[in-house]
Amino acid sequence: MRIEVLRIGQRAVRDDRVTTHAALVARAFGAERIFMEEVNPQVRDTLADVSSTWGGGFEVELIDSWRALLRSKKGSASIVHLTMYGETIDAAIGSLRRKEKILAVVGAGKVPRDVYELADYNVSIGGQPHSEISALAVFLDRLQEGRQLSKGYGDARRKVLPMRRGKHVLEGEPE
Amino acid sequence: MRIEVLRIGQRAVRDDRVTTHAALVARAFGAERIFMEEVNPQVRDTLADVSSTWGGGFEVELIDSWRALLRSKKGSASIVHLTMYGETIDAAIGSLRRKEKILAVVGAGKVPRDVYELADYNVSIGGQPHSEISALAVFLDRLQEGRQLSKGYGDARRKVLPMRRGKHVLEGEPE
Repeated sequence: MRIEVLRIGQRAVRDDRVTTHAALVARAFGAERIFMEEVNPQVRDTLADVSSTWGGGFEVELIDSWRALLRSKKGSASIVHLTMYGETIDAAIGSLRRKEKILAVVGAGKVPRDVYELADYNVSIGGQPHSEISALAVFLDRLQEGRQLSKGYGDARRKVLPMRRGKHVLEGEPE
Repeated sequence: MRIEVLRIGQRAVRDDRVTTHAALVARAFGAERIFMEEVNPQVRDTLADVSSTWGGGFEVELIDSWRALLRSKKGSASIVHLTMYGETIDAAIGSLRRKEKILAVVGAGKVPRDVYELADYNVSIGGQPHSEISALAVFLDRLQEGRQLSKGYGDARRKVLPMRRGKHVLEGEPE
């Protein structure tokens, strides 16, 4: 399965840290890239630094129009809009696990109505307000049944060795 | 199972939105309260507004010292520190599901060493950097095996009816 993420509606500066967290989640939970409109260059820099250290080929791709992107993906990927108003993840996840390509769409705050129309699926991670970061994480975790957490990242200069107390980090040149 | 969350290390203003998201996740994923040190009053106000509209008795509790709080909880709750350096969630989750009380601890950025010592469990949601918001969400989702998403919230003035397209919100006075 190939996974991409589209984030729409962020406002530069005010949302920079939340945007960075959303991009880090996309990377750490198995997506290949995140598409975003206007964004502080620091967000891209942070993600490039993380990939340089921790490996993998994750991309932050800046786009001019999320509508154009959604239209271009329509038909080739299953577009899954995460929203507290959608059908429950329990209802949707079975068929989504069988897809080859997923484009997960998360919005910062209120999302224009046509996102609901352009999406193939509108899926809720519960009907309570929380965060696009948590919605994305739980969706990707359930979509891949947790397998993304043990995935390796190529060309990593740093790796964690899980342990019960303290930190064990393997440092070195990429293999 | 009773669940509380402790967030440590946030910096006022810079982290306000991330702090708000972390608190919203705690509420939406079944915790009773979140403990935090100094925080912008807006964070509490936002959570009070959300609970007033969407129901439930979630509390944001300001504390003077997270160390004192951890010491006071030691022995009565299982203290689970979420960190990318900990043992894997797959290894830990089985025994954690059998606990009566959980205190989940999340840090903003680098966490002082004694958190690792005071915790009963240091648990990683993958060994890649992401976000305390996503770590908390995935941990609580797996801990409760998703049941938190269908939990009702008492005295709600607003409820979502899940649907595939569009929004269906039930409005009214609390029952």
